[in-house]
Amino acid sequence: MSTTPYVLNFGAGPAKIPTSVLERAQSEMLNYDNSGMSVMELSHRSKTFGKILDGTKSKLKSLMDIPDNYEILFMQGGATTQFAAVFYNLVAAKQAKEGNEQEVIVDYVVSGAWSNKAAQEAERLAANERSTIKVNRVTDSKKVYGKYGSLAPEDSWQLSDPKKTAYVYYCDNETVHGVEFQQIPKVDPGVPLVADVSSNFLSRPLDVRKFGVIYGGAQKNLGPAGVSIVIIRKDLLADLNIGPVRPLMLDFKTMADNDSMYNTPPTFSIYMVGLVLEWLEDQGGLASMEKRNMAKAKKLYDVIDQSALYRSPVDVNCRSRMNVVFRLSSEALEAEFLAGVAELNMVQLKGHRSVGGIRASIYNSMPEQDVDQLIAYMNTFEKAHTSTN
Amino acid sequence: MSTTPYVLNFGAGPAKIPTSVLERAQSEMLNYDNSGMSVMELSHRSKTFGKILDGTKSKLKSLMDIPDNYEILFMQGGATTQFAAVFYNLVAAKQAKEGNEQEVIVDYVVSGAWSNKAAQEAERLAANERSTIKVNRVTDSKKVYGKYGSLAPEDSWQLSDPKKTAYVYYCDNETVHGVEFQQIPKVDPGVPLVADVSSNFLSRPLDVRKFGVIYGGAQKNLGPAGVSIVIIRKDLLADLNIGPVRPLMLDFKTMADNDSMYNTPPTFSIYMVGLVLEWLEDQGGLASMEKRNMAKAKKLYDVIDQSALYRSPVDVNCRSRMNVVFRLSSEALEAEFLAGVAELNMVQLKGHRSVGGIRASIYNSMPEQDVDQLIAYMNTFEKAHTSTN
Repeated sequence: MSTTPYVLNFGAGPAKIPTSVLERAQSEMLNYDNSGMSVMELSHRSKTFGKILDGTKSKLKSLMDIPDNYEILFMQGGATTQFAAVFYNLVAAKQAKEGNEQEVIVDYVVSGAWSNKAAQEAERLAANERSTIKVNRVTDSKKVYGKYGSLAPEDSWQLSDPKKTAYVYYCDNETVHGVEFQQIPKVDPGVPLVADVSSNFLSRPLDVRKFGVIYGGAQKNLGPAGVSIVIIRKDLLADLNIGPVRPLMLDFKTMADNDSMYNTPPTFSIYMVGLVLEWLEDQGGLASMEKRNMAKAKKLYDVIDQSALYRSPVDVNCRSRMNVVFRLSSEALEAEFLAGVAELNMVQLKGHRSVGGIRASIYNSMPEQDVDQLIAYMNTFEKAHTSTN
Repeated sequence: MSTTPYVLNFGAGPAKIPTSVLERAQSEMLNYDNSGMSVMELSHRSKTFGKILDGTKSKLKSLMDIPDNYEILFMQGGATTQFAAVFYNLVAAKQAKEGNEQEVIVDYVVSGAWSNKAAQEAERLAANERSTIKVNRVTDSKKVYGKYGSLAPEDSWQLSDPKKTAYVYYCDNETVHGVEFQQIPKVDPGVPLVADVSSNFLSRPLDVRKFGVIYGGAQKNLGPAGVSIVIIRKDLLADLNIGPVRPLMLDFKTMADNDSMYNTPPTFSIYMVGLVLEWLEDQGGLASMEKRNMAKAKKLYDVIDQSALYRSPVDVNCRSRMNVVFRLSSEALEAEFLAGVAELNMVQLKGHRSVGGIRASIYNSMPEQDVDQLIAYMNTFEKAHTSTN
């Protein structure tokens, strides 16, 4: 076998997985726990897989300090599937409490591409419900500032009447625009707060008690694509026959009642998530990850802020510690920058196709020395371009 | 590393994966195609993953002889998600053609647990549509025969008026009850035929041209759990705004328009499916698989039919070549049988928890010698129990 080239993977997702996790999966690929089988070959109803599922849940519970009145669900279809599931299930929970005939409002904080897509899905589903469900954008950075990258202060948000509000939704870290909330938004204690944490899941401690639902796809900080984790407060699990009609597989209560095994779950992806959680424990847990992630991000933003060549399109008060986006003065220069990093085996640094520019995703698995190498290149590139200009 | 014990995996799914496929995945785990990355770490928008996706599609196309007027989609959520997706999308296709106000009927052939669940999901969704959509069970083995395991002759089926019928749905192989269709049901050429082939996918040639939709989860014959394949005739792709309201991620046209990458697809599972398809090519393709599968199944059914101890609950005209279910005279004897196989490293032979008994799943990846070992044990067990009784 040829030697594996050392690659610095700055991809936004699917993203870098800790090498030790991949090595473990590799060594167990044909014989998991002396079963003579791959994890992929185990029945999801077998004791061996049952232990994997339970272990993954209990590691997540412990790492995130998830209270007993929350369920942990493993689902499929990524965050986009959750856009619909959250709408269906939390409207149902509200209607279970207040009755079907009452007006129900769902509040969306729109801070980037993903929360915008979530709001759009709710708007489409609500419009078709021919009902009394209204979608309210409590703030929309594009409307307020003409662009994503800024975040209106919370006291300017137009939150709806708490009595009518099924939930307040926000995206804790906007992967495309590099916008991250620095604190949990304040909402009425009677209104469930919903967070999409797909791209900063487990990157720092989060007070789960403040949320009705926390969810995220695994493919950034947690493992391979193909599994989403939903953490939901148990009182929000509504009966399937209440509220908007929804596919069985998008029903939170059905998933909870069947321990995420109403049908075959994505067993191998869940196993991989378990290995990543074990790795996180070995790294000292979330407080330790937060320190490392803040240090990595600060280094990069410092270079950008002290540079005449690089520019951050994101306001200082909402910069992502996971996805550091930056621009150069022209697209031609950005292309040159990207060609240069590729030669140094730094890959997947291109900004999202909808916005362009550069994006360095520096998730939990990204070691500080890889960030240092990127910074070294940025400095060299800048020197070369300031001396010749 | 300890030696891998040789295990004979008769699991119904997730099921045995060819050893050479697992070895290949193992060897490429940390360095796919000299990228320095695992397949799990590749962006779904990268050229490297694009080649995996395209290669998987073209291998499937070639193996199944899929005509150009069909789309191949990779989706998530297993067959149960497709129960809803098929209903939503094919009712939409019918309404796109006939108008929203016309009565639409969906026909279900109910031959076992899975087609029954599919019909139930359609019934639930249709009831809630407050519309003119009706669900018709054209036959239901449980009603006709009091049990699954028999199949009413096609000329007794109560198919609906073709002008009003959005589709006729059946499950080509019922994994729980071991019931498999021996030929494709005949329907009006104007009515799309839909087949769930989750548990006999690629086990034999299938004339795709006779179908509107063919779909299946991967975790029996095709790879790991977490990806479903949908093959759909292009004229059945209806606009998202027509027909029943459906989540974006369950919309076939959205998936087709985005080459299954509206959001991040389950990249590693797709890669594994590609490896299994390559293995199938090496085995001589579907005609060759059919011969081997028929030979394996015949051997097992012969033992059952010639035995005084074993009994098949499935009629000869609809016995599955994938899931051979059989009973012994008592549950105690079945437990003894299962304890004996376990000692010989034959695993996952227990019947589905809803029906009990024994189930030997003998998918493509199951070598004939493993079936021979099971047969040898069955013969020994029978001798022991006839001499002592």
